[in-house]
Amino acid sequence: MYKTNKTIQAELSKVQATIKKELTSEKIIQEIYEYIFNTEGKKTRALISLLASKSSNVKSTKRIELASVIELLHTATLVHDDVVDESEKRRGTKSVNQVWSNSYSVLIGDFIYSKAFILMVKLNMSAVLDELAKATNDIAKGEIIQLELFENKQSIKLKDLLKVSYLKTGRLFEASAKTGAMLANISADEIKTFGLLGKALGIAFQIQDDLLDYEAFKLNTGKPSLKDFREGKITFPLYFAMQNAQPKDKEFLLKHLGSKKILQIHQAKIYKLIQSEASQKATKTLLKKYINEANKYLESLKHHASYNEMLNLITVSTTRKI
Amino acid sequence: MYKTNKTIQAELSKVQATIKKELTSEKIIQEIYEYIFNTEGKKTRALISLLASKSSNVKSTKRIELASVIELLHTATLVHDDVVDESEKRRGTKSVNQVWSNSYSVLIGDFIYSKAFILMVKLNMSAVLDELAKATNDIAKGEIIQLELFENKQSIKLKDLLKVSYLKTGRLFEASAKTGAMLANISADEIKTFGLLGKALGIAFQIQDDLLDYEAFKLNTGKPSLKDFREGKITFPLYFAMQNAQPKDKEFLLKHLGSKKILQIHQAKIYKLIQSEASQKATKTLLKKYINEANKYLESLKHHASYNEMLNLITVSTTRKI
Repeated sequence: MYKTNKTIQAELSKVQATIKKELTSEKIIQEIYEYIFNTEGKKTRALISLLASKSSNVKSTKRIELASVIELLHTATLVHDDVVDESEKRRGTKSVNQVWSNSYSVLIGDFIYSKAFILMVKLNMSAVLDELAKATNDIAKGEIIQLELFENKQSIKLKDLLKVSYLKTGRLFEASAKTGAMLANISADEIKTFGLLGKALGIAFQIQDDLLDYEAFKLNTGKPSLKDFREGKITFPLYFAMQNAQPKDKEFLLKHLGSKKILQIHQAKIYKLIQSEASQKATKTLLKKYINEANKYLESLKHHASYNEMLNLITVSTTRKI
Repeated sequence: MYKTNKTIQAELSKVQATIKKELTSEKIIQEIYEYIFNTEGKKTRALISLLASKSSNVKSTKRIELASVIELLHTATLVHDDVVDESEKRRGTKSVNQVWSNSYSVLIGDFIYSKAFILMVKLNMSAVLDELAKATNDIAKGEIIQLELFENKQSIKLKDLLKVSYLKTGRLFEASAKTGAMLANISADEIKTFGLLGKALGIAFQIQDDLLDYEAFKLNTGKPSLKDFREGKITFPLYFAMQNAQPKDKEFLLKHLGSKKILQIHQAKIYKLIQSEASQKATKTLLKKYINEANKYLESLKHHASYNEMLNLITVSTTRKI
């Protein structure tokens, strides 16, 4: 879905080929593994890594390996998230926990995590390993904090939501950009800038994702409508809707939040409240803030081989419809 | 519980101190983390690593770090296993999934895994990282194979049970011994021998564990009685009992296998069938085979600083009552 040049497109295809290559003689593992990777994701994180690592000094194969590691780590988190969220769908098809069970999801997630680490060790770059191990740790941390946060939905704060968005989404965007830049062996300052760019872009990406959950109600995006809401998640649009709603409307939202079955008429009301002008405006202002931040960091990377494509990525990521 | 010299005892205490040290400002993570590590395990794998790494050439701090990494990896697998097995107890206290929920268990397991990898990267030994990433991958593989195996309980084969025992238990014993030996920088041949010793010891350890599940029925071991049986697991004693039982008794065993609630009178019958002479004899013969194998490998390490303690560990591990 991202408009990139042919070289990067070809590299992204090689990332897909690399992660799909699993040579186990175990039929059951092969089966689940293929099921997971047969539906392609957007590979935004892999793309960031490929763009940041672009340099005449680095072999394309190394860059593809790193991008594959990142995509594997991301996929492992998704498989475990689906257990945590009791999700029924992932990328338009049934989630692993639905086709097999939670037990299989937990274990195949561990399998994919460790596969990522095996490939990472092959890269033989201590700083990359350190950053990705820490990012994986932070993602788990973010998910745990979110779980607890959602137990006290009444008193949630914007700074908590931002913290969770950073840890569960921004952190891997940050690590993708940083480790890509590390591989390209550019200056410590530029590696840092890439990291900050990735972090801001990741948070913006999460805000856009939150907006899309409610867009899905009117559009056909492949995502089930009000998915976040049914899973009991307080996302940015819902947070701002509750901030701006009448007490009885806030109560109404909290009452239905996390319900698997919501009457059509209630769905429409939820949608209306969350799509309210005040909520939409506040969410989009926040989104804009992080896009601006990402663009600001990109400005100091004007000389970089991927400047134009990074600029395009920021725009597309934060205006995308799926 | 293992009789070791004072130095190794002190080192094991330092392993416990190292893994308990988690400096997160997040209360919820700290709370679950401390809950997990406040109940001490036997630390058999950490001990193997400490013994294999014993050498005048290696700093004690490095050896403790490696042993801590191994103990963290092992603990992460236990936390996830408790979700898979729907276990209610772990080390005599309620499991994380009971006190919090499966979601918390999945995520704190990921947190501990990645913490292990962070510490591992600090060790800065590529071969150690490679071995431990592969072992983690094999453990997940073993658990997945076991899940599927137990879906066809009728047709289970001894070679399948042995394969699963190797992957889910023997593999980390093997990696503990091997990476310990790698750290001590001994010859490639000796590293290999340590690996084979660990592998055989791990399988023996698993067979002993299986025996203890049924022992728990008559003894007070802190483990709930017939835990494996209630979780639907075909272990070695059950496998041999079914091999040797009358068709109607085999049917009886299969009928109750995996039931959470089993009448007292049926429990007694299950116990009697599994503790039958034929089953006990076959299981103990198999156990003896792997103990002999471990001892055989140890014989070629007679000059090693840990020879006596390894000998003791093999004996204790495979005659233990808890």
